[in-house]
Amino acid sequence: MTITIDEMASFCKRKGLVFPSVEIYGGMAGSWDYGPAGVELANNLKQSWWKYFVQDREDMVGVDGSIVNPRAVWEASGHTENFDDILVGCTQCKEKHRADHLVEDSAGIRTDGMTAKELDKHIKKNNIRCKKCGGELGQCTPFNLMFETYIGDKSPENQGFLRPETAQIIFTNFKGVADTSRVKTPFGIAQIGKVFRNEIAPRNFLFRCREFEQMEIEYFIHPKQEAECPFLDEVAKDKLVLYTQDDQKKDGEAQTMTAKEAVTKKVLMPWHSYWLATIIRWFVANGAKRENFRCRQHVKTELSHYAKDTWDVEYKFPFGYKELQGVANRQDFDLQQHIKHSGKELTLFDEESKEKFVPHVVCEPSQGVGRALLVFLFDAYEFDHKRENVVLHLHPKLAPYKAAIFPLLKNRKELVDKAKEVYEDLKKDYNVFYDESGSIGKRYARQDEIGTPLCITIDFDSLEGGDVTLRDRDTTKQERVKTSALKSKVEQCLRRGNK
Amino acid sequence: MTITIDEMASFCKRKGLVFPSVEIYGGMAGSWDYGPAGVELANNLKQSWWKYFVQDREDMVGVDGSIVNPRAVWEASGHTENFDDILVGCTQCKEKHRADHLVEDSAGIRTDGMTAKELDKHIKKNNIRCKKCGGELGQCTPFNLMFETYIGDKSPENQGFLRPETAQIIFTNFKGVADTSRVKTPFGIAQIGKVFRNEIAPRNFLFRCREFEQMEIEYFIHPKQEAECPFLDEVAKDKLVLYTQDDQKKDGEAQTMTAKEAVTKKVLMPWHSYWLATIIRWFVANGAKRENFRCRQHVKTELSHYAKDTWDVEYKFPFGYKELQGVANRQDFDLQQHIKHSGKELTLFDEESKEKFVPHVVCEPSQGVGRALLVFLFDAYEFDHKRENVVLHLHPKLAPYKAAIFPLLKNRKELVDKAKEVYEDLKKDYNVFYDESGSIGKRYARQDEIGTPLCITIDFDSLEGGDVTLRDRDTTKQERVKTSALKSKVEQCLRRGNK
Repeated sequence: MTITIDEMASFCKRKGLVFPSVEIYGGMAGSWDYGPAGVELANNLKQSWWKYFVQDREDMVGVDGSIVNPRAVWEASGHTENFDDILVGCTQCKEKHRADHLVEDSAGIRTDGMTAKELDKHIKKNNIRCKKCGGELGQCTPFNLMFETYIGDKSPENQGFLRPETAQIIFTNFKGVADTSRVKTPFGIAQIGKVFRNEIAPRNFLFRCREFEQMEIEYFIHPKQEAECPFLDEVAKDKLVLYTQDDQKKDGEAQTMTAKEAVTKKVLMPWHSYWLATIIRWFVANGAKRENFRCRQHVKTELSHYAKDTWDVEYKFPFGYKELQGVANRQDFDLQQHIKHSGKELTLFDEESKEKFVPHVVCEPSQGVGRALLVFLFDAYEFDHKRENVVLHLHPKLAPYKAAIFPLLKNRKELVDKAKEVYEDLKKDYNVFYDESGSIGKRYARQDEIGTPLCITIDFDSLEGGDVTLRDRDTTKQERVKTSALKSKVEQCLRRGNK
Repeated sequence: MTITIDEMASFCKRKGLVFPSVEIYGGMAGSWDYGPAGVELANNLKQSWWKYFVQDREDMVGVDGSIVNPRAVWEASGHTENFDDILVGCTQCKEKHRADHLVEDSAGIRTDGMTAKELDKHIKKNNIRCKKCGGELGQCTPFNLMFETYIGDKSPENQGFLRPETAQIIFTNFKGVADTSRVKTPFGIAQIGKVFRNEIAPRNFLFRCREFEQMEIEYFIHPKQEAECPFLDEVAKDKLVLYTQDDQKKDGEAQTMTAKEAVTKKVLMPWHSYWLATIIRWFVANGAKRENFRCRQHVKTELSHYAKDTWDVEYKFPFGYKELQGVANRQDFDLQQHIKHSGKELTLFDEESKEKFVPHVVCEPSQGVGRALLVFLFDAYEFDHKRENVVLHLHPKLAPYKAAIFPLLKNRKELVDKAKEVYEDLKKDYNVFYDESGSIGKRYARQDEIGTPLCITIDFDSLEGGDVTLRDRDTTKQERVKTSALKSKVEQCLRRGNK
C-alpha cells in the first residue's frame, strides 16, 4: 500500500473503475459511479459476500427492501431525533464545516459523541477558525443527516426519508420473514442495498460518501442464547488484534489473541468473537491481508444509545486505522421500538418454554461496499518497477474479467477467428475480455492494471497445434496450454488462494 | 395464467417472495420489499439479464451510477419541465386522481399524450365524477413525478432529485466510458438500478410502483450505421407479433412476421427489429411463453418529444396487454442536451472520416425488474389440481433454490447427518435448501410453491447404497440417483430448456 487515497481515486477514474458522479456538471461531493470494470468488480464483491454470509449458511435469509420510507419508520428507530452531525458555519465566507472533524484536525482531540455545546467550548478554547478563509466560526448546530422527500404531494403527512441504513428495513420486514420462513433463533436476516447520508463533509473517495451501498446482517438470538455461540469452534484459532476500551484509555497497544482466547479472557462475548473472526475471514478469503485488520471496542462516549457493546473492524488505510464495519450488540432495542410505534407483535415462539419472545440482535455486522472495495484495491495495488506498470493483484473471484483473449495480430483473419472461438467458448462460463489492439505487451499491461489474472494469446502455432500461450498476472510466467484445458485452468485459478 | 394480479400479490406475500413495504406501519402504496425467496429470484433474474446483455456481448459495457443527482442533470434531460402526470382532485372528499386513468376508465377514451386542458374537456363532456365519493372534480393540473430532495442544507442551489430513470446516468457517464474503454460504435452501455417516480396512483402490484429497479441499455451508433444492423441475421427467423400505428388507427389486428420480414416490409427499422427480437429471446430463454408477447408501435400522440420511433414490448397480463419495456430511438437528443447544458464535448472519433461525431441512440431497451418478474411468475404459475397445490414452473436458472435436501426423518441422526453431508456438498456450487420438518409430501409441496426444480430425499437405503431419491418438480417423477451423480443432475437441470 504505497499510494494515497486521492491517488487511488485518480487511478480508479483512469481505469474505468470509478468515476466522480455527474462530473460533466462539476461533480457531486460524496457521490461516485462505477464504470465498466468497476461495476463488474463491485458485483463480484457483493455476490461473494451474499454467497458467504447468506447462501452458504443455513441460519441466514435475505431481504431487499425499499429506500424511500415514510416518517413513521425513522421516528421509531430514533433517526428523526438522533441522527445528527454537528455543523459549524464560518461567519465570513459562509463555508459549512463538520465541527467534530474540525476540532479533531485542529486540536488533535477525540470528539466521539461530543455535543454541540462541548464542541463550541473546544472551538473557543483552542481558537479554531475557518479552514477555508481563517474567519471566525459561528455556533455549532445539529444537522439531521437524512435526505428528506415527499411521497405524493408536499403535505406534512407525506414526509418521507431516504433510508440512512438498511438495518431498519430488516426490522420492518421481521414479521413478514418470521411468518413465512419458519426461522428459529439463532438466525440472521441480511440485506444489500443503497443508503443515503447527507454528509456535511464527504471525503476520502469511497470512504465517506453521501450515497453508498451497505451489506448488513441483523443476527437474532433468544436472550438465553447470549452466553454461548455454537459456531465459535469453527473460528477458535483465528488470530484477532483487539484494541479494548481499557487499552485505549491508557493509550496502550492492541493485543493479539485467538478468537477462543478472547472469550476465555472475557475480552469478547462469544458471539462478538465469532462474528469478528468470521468477517475478517471473508476479507482474507477474498484477497485482503490479515495484518491490516484490527478490532477496536467503542469507548463509552461513542457507544450508540441502543448498543450494549460495539466493536469496529478497522483497516489500516493510508489515512490511518479507520472503521470498516461496526458490529453492535443492539439487544432488542429496535424491535421493541417498532412494537411500540406500530402496535404490531414482533415476536417468535419458543418451542421449549411455549412462550412468545422478542429476539435480541446480538450482533449486527454492517459493511459498506465502497469501503470493502477500497480494502481489496489497496491490498491488491502494486507498482511493479520491473514492468513499470501497476499490477492489481485482485483475488481471481473478484477480478472484473477472469481472462483476456488476444490474437497475436489483428489483421490476420485466421488468428482473429481462432481467438474469437476461444473467447466465445470461455464466455459461456466466465466473464472474459477480448482485445486485439496494440502490442501484446501493451495488452498485458492493460489487463494487469484492472487485475485480470490470466491472458491467453493465440499465435500461428496455435492454428496448428491447438495450444495457446497462457500468462499469469502475478508471476508473468507463460506456459503453452491446449485450448481444451483452458476451462480447467480458469477454474483452478478461481479456486486458488490469494497471492 | 389463471389468477388475477391481486391474487398473485397475496400468493407472493404468503410464500415470502414479496412483502408490501413497511406493512407494520400500514404499508406504502407502490412500494414492495423482496422476502427471502424473492430476493434470490430477483437476483437470479438480474444476473441472467446482465450476463445475456452485458457479459455475453462484446459490444456492451456496464455502469452503476448514483440515484440522487443535482438539478442540472434533470434540467438538461427535460424532466424538470416535462415529466408530469395530470392530477385532478375531488372538490368534496379531496381524493387525488390521475386524470388520464380516470378518463380512460370512465369514458373508454385513449388518453396518451393528452394535455391537462384536453383532459378537463373530456371530464366535463362525459360528466366524470370522483371515483371515491361521486363528488365534483376540480381542475386538472400537472404534477411532476420526480422525488425532490436537498443535497446538503435546504438552499435552492442544493436542490436534487431521485433519478426517475437510469438512462440519464448512462449519458452523464458517457464521457468517462468513452475516455477509458475505447468503445467503438455500434456499442451499448447498460445499467441496473433503482429509480423513483412519485406516481399519483400506483397500482397492480409490481406493475406500477413508486420505487422500482430498471435494467436499461443505451445503444449507440454512428448516424451512418442506422440503415443496417450487422446482427439481424442472428434473429432473422424469430417470429414477432407487430401492432403498428396503422393497425391501431383502423382498430385492426396485430400481424405476425419474422424479424427479417419486418425489415423487408419496412414495418421495422433493422435495429428495432433486432432489439425487439433479442429482448423477447431473453424472456423465452428464461422460461416465458412466446405467445404472450407482442410489439406495439407508439402512436404519434404518445411519442416522447425526443423519440423518432418507439415500440413497446407488451405482455398479456391478466389486466390486458401492457407495456413491458419501451424501445425508443432517441437519436442524439440526450447527448446534445447534455453537451448544451454542460458545455462538455460528448463525442467519439470516427477513424474513417477522421472526424468527431455525436453518436445516436438507435435503441434504448429499458425494462423494469418487477414487470419482468411478473412475466416469469404468471407464466410459471399453475394450480395443479392433482397435487391440490400451486406449482411454480420457474426456469431452473431463475428458481430461488436449485434443489432441496430432506432427511426422511428428522429424529434419526444417521439420516440427518447424511442429508447435511449432501447439502454441504451441493451448496458449494448451488443455492440449495435444507428442510427436515413435516412429511415428505408437505416438504415437496412447499418447494413446488417456490419453484425449486429438484428435491432430494435421503432414506435408509441411502445409508447403505449411497443413492438418494431425486424428484422432479414439473413431472413429479422420482428416480434413484447416486450421490456422486447429483451435481451433474443439477447442472443438466440448469442447462435444460424451459418446461
